[in-house]
Amino acid sequence: MTIIAAEVHDVRFPTSRSLDGSDAMNVDPDYSAAYVILRTDAGDGLEGHGFTFTTGRGTEVVVAAIEALKGRIVGRSEGELCADTGALWRELVGDSQLRWIGPEKGVIHLATAALVNAVWDLAAKRAGKPLWKLLADMTPDELVAAIDFRYITDALSPNHARDMLADRAVTRAGREAIVVHDGYPAYTTSVGWLGYPDDKIQRLTEEALAAGWTRFKMKVGADLDDDIRRAGIVRAAIGPDQLLMMDANQRWDVDEAIDWMAALARFEPYWIEEPTSPDDILGHARIAREVAPIRVATGEHVHNRVMFKQFLQADGLSVCQVDACRLGGVNEVLAVLLLAARFGVPVCPHAGGVGLCELVQHLSVFDFIAVSGQLEGRMIEYVDHLHEHFVDPVEIRDGRYRVPMRPGYSAEMRRESLERFAFPAGEAWRG
Amino acid sequence: MTIIAAEVHDVRFPTSRSLDGSDAMNVDPDYSAAYVILRTDAGDGLEGHGFTFTTGRGTEVVVAAIEALKGRIVGRSEGELCADTGALWRELVGDSQLRWIGPEKGVIHLATAALVNAVWDLAAKRAGKPLWKLLADMTPDELVAAIDFRYITDALSPNHARDMLADRAVTRAGREAIVVHDGYPAYTTSVGWLGYPDDKIQRLTEEALAAGWTRFKMKVGADLDDDIRRAGIVRAAIGPDQLLMMDANQRWDVDEAIDWMAALARFEPYWIEEPTSPDDILGHARIAREVAPIRVATGEHVHNRVMFKQFLQADGLSVCQVDACRLGGVNEVLAVLLLAARFGVPVCPHAGGVGLCELVQHLSVFDFIAVSGQLEGRMIEYVDHLHEHFVDPVEIRDGRYRVPMRPGYSAEMRRESLERFAFPAGEAWRG
Repeated sequence: MTIIAAEVHDVRFPTSRSLDGSDAMNVDPDYSAAYVILRTDAGDGLEGHGFTFTTGRGTEVVVAAIEALKGRIVGRSEGELCADTGALWRELVGDSQLRWIGPEKGVIHLATAALVNAVWDLAAKRAGKPLWKLLADMTPDELVAAIDFRYITDALSPNHARDMLADRAVTRAGREAIVVHDGYPAYTTSVGWLGYPDDKIQRLTEEALAAGWTRFKMKVGADLDDDIRRAGIVRAAIGPDQLLMMDANQRWDVDEAIDWMAALARFEPYWIEEPTSPDDILGHARIAREVAPIRVATGEHVHNRVMFKQFLQADGLSVCQVDACRLGGVNEVLAVLLLAARFGVPVCPHAGGVGLCELVQHLSVFDFIAVSGQLEGRMIEYVDHLHEHFVDPVEIRDGRYRVPMRPGYSAEMRRESLERFAFPAGEAWRG
Repeated sequence: MTIIAAEVHDVRFPTSRSLDGSDAMNVDPDYSAAYVILRTDAGDGLEGHGFTFTTGRGTEVVVAAIEALKGRIVGRSEGELCADTGALWRELVGDSQLRWIGPEKGVIHLATAALVNAVWDLAAKRAGKPLWKLLADMTPDELVAAIDFRYITDALSPNHARDMLADRAVTRAGREAIVVHDGYPAYTTSVGWLGYPDDKIQRLTEEALAAGWTRFKMKVGADLDDDIRRAGIVRAAIGPDQLLMMDANQRWDVDEAIDWMAALARFEPYWIEEPTSPDDILGHARIAREVAPIRVATGEHVHNRVMFKQFLQADGLSVCQVDACRLGGVNEVLAVLLLAARFGVPVCPHAGGVGLCELVQHLSVFDFIAVSGQLEGRMIEYVDHLHEHFVDPVEIRDGRYRVPMRPGYSAEMRRESLERFAFPAGEAWRG
């Protein structure tokens, strides 16, 4: 069977109209995706769907990058690609001319993610398993072969990774049964977008409590007085025992972050997320030392495994917010899950954005079964909008993700959504 | 006067056919540029030319990113843009949707560089000065206003930068006279591209010596036996007193770099350049400690001022190879020149690539006059090809750059080159 086409879509949802998703740096995002459909000549209709998340303008640039890369997939044997995704990954990031415009960062890496994720979706569908199960059924050797250890061997060698995976392998089945039964812990970001008025925040927090949520995230960083007032509203609503996380979305310089969090410490935040530039490993490390016991979380803009390696080496984060589309797709996420486990840091994936909840649930379930083996300090972000556009949307019960059971990576958008929100020609954008 | 158009070109030179520019990671580059021409309604024919360097495939992706950004320049007042380039810079990197696909890294940052450099070229032409002179005539306050200090204030505040510039301001004229008279020190990279056979390397080294060069760089990293043989050839040809630099172009992991340089140490390299991933600040710091007294140099892939800040804070580099197009153009280069001076590290700009020699000479001349005030340990890279495509090409005499005197940033390519090497429609690429 051969991959005969990679169809690329620019899909944008006009979320800026209601300020859903607004924060201190992303003031008016239109949640979007550069989206890929891989078709084969198998005649069975199975397709590989993958995407990378974007926020409106610039999606067309990522689409151009996918077009530049897709020639390395189209025309190839499906079986060969799916059997050795590690080789495919190295080929995509190693293109001797395209790597100049990265390497392994920004637009070209987002494009890599879309294509790599589509290949994994296809592989999981072909195997008749959800992605987490496909991964959890792979041997330690197979998982190690899927990872590019280039530039991280000083922190994690292939042998060490294999040993870590082998240690957990014998007890995988027990954890699989637990997570399928209980679901995976989650927290909600949907109560405290920065563009929401106070009364809306209060109402949404109360509704979320009533729905069984126990962990809440709010946006901070634009104005300290506003943050104090809003944190007071949320903390009063949830009481002293529930978790409150804060997210500054890169708004501050290092000293500013330290001062600002001193002023917000009385609301007992569990973590401060993205306090400064996502590139500033040493800055995060200093902030972490100064704001302790408040944890420092980051990851949605940490662009590759080399950066995560250093964040872990430097104690620059205490919560690892791996992103399914900022990293170069599933293969690089595997590297980061292992690095985090190696350093004893919990992974709480980033999922603010369209379709990210659908993807990262697979990663966290696999992490629990085969890598970390723990749930303590782990939770998946949840935002409550745009799930209706997916064929296999996430299911939340009592503040936990139910484990997805349909074959694939849950990445597939409904055909009518792809058409209606196509940019700029779709119905949602016309006129 | 209004900017009425930004014309964007994809220009590629087929350098891969002769392996000019080949190294351990860039095995077959086609030196290219995503190139911008800003036109005004002034009626005097003055244009702003700017570009970012690329290596072939993917140039079209950078072109798409320039198209996405250029709306922030076209239609604006030329005088307003040129009078406050700092505000323009912040606006370009701060676009609330486009920053998601960076921020300040990869394709979108390369696109920023092309546009920002074009604005500076226009500003310098309008002032009737070469760019270095335009900068050297700015007051400390004006220079500080051109810099975005976001995310670097923990290492360099605006006040500190102003003081540093003010300290050098009174002695600027003396240094200007010296550099205009003597030129600026340089080194040549043109003798040791990795794709060249031994006899070509020997011949080119001898020719360069005869032409007055005293500093030579060779490529390493693909095969240790080859490197030892080739280093022997170059060291034997230049003798013990001339400088020999080595460049691994990101080929190694951290431990591998340390081992490899132990084997090459007997050739007394002055520096090892890009020993590992350009993102690996902590890795570079460890390599620097282990390979001393060999210096560690990097910069052509260090994507913004936040990364340079940390390389300096962590002693991850001892030679700062700022790139005129990887950073977001002149404004961000100013920040890095000041950071390097603050940490006492010499700046030796990267110039391997088409047009980079033309640009960086302005930056180094300005650095000497107004920032570092020193030439010790400073030299500009020189490669000897593709200068014939520029209206104002660099001039080398006795292994030194002559100071450019024509108004502008020396960025302008000849119209016939833009047409002939246009990709894919130009004559050079047809058939």
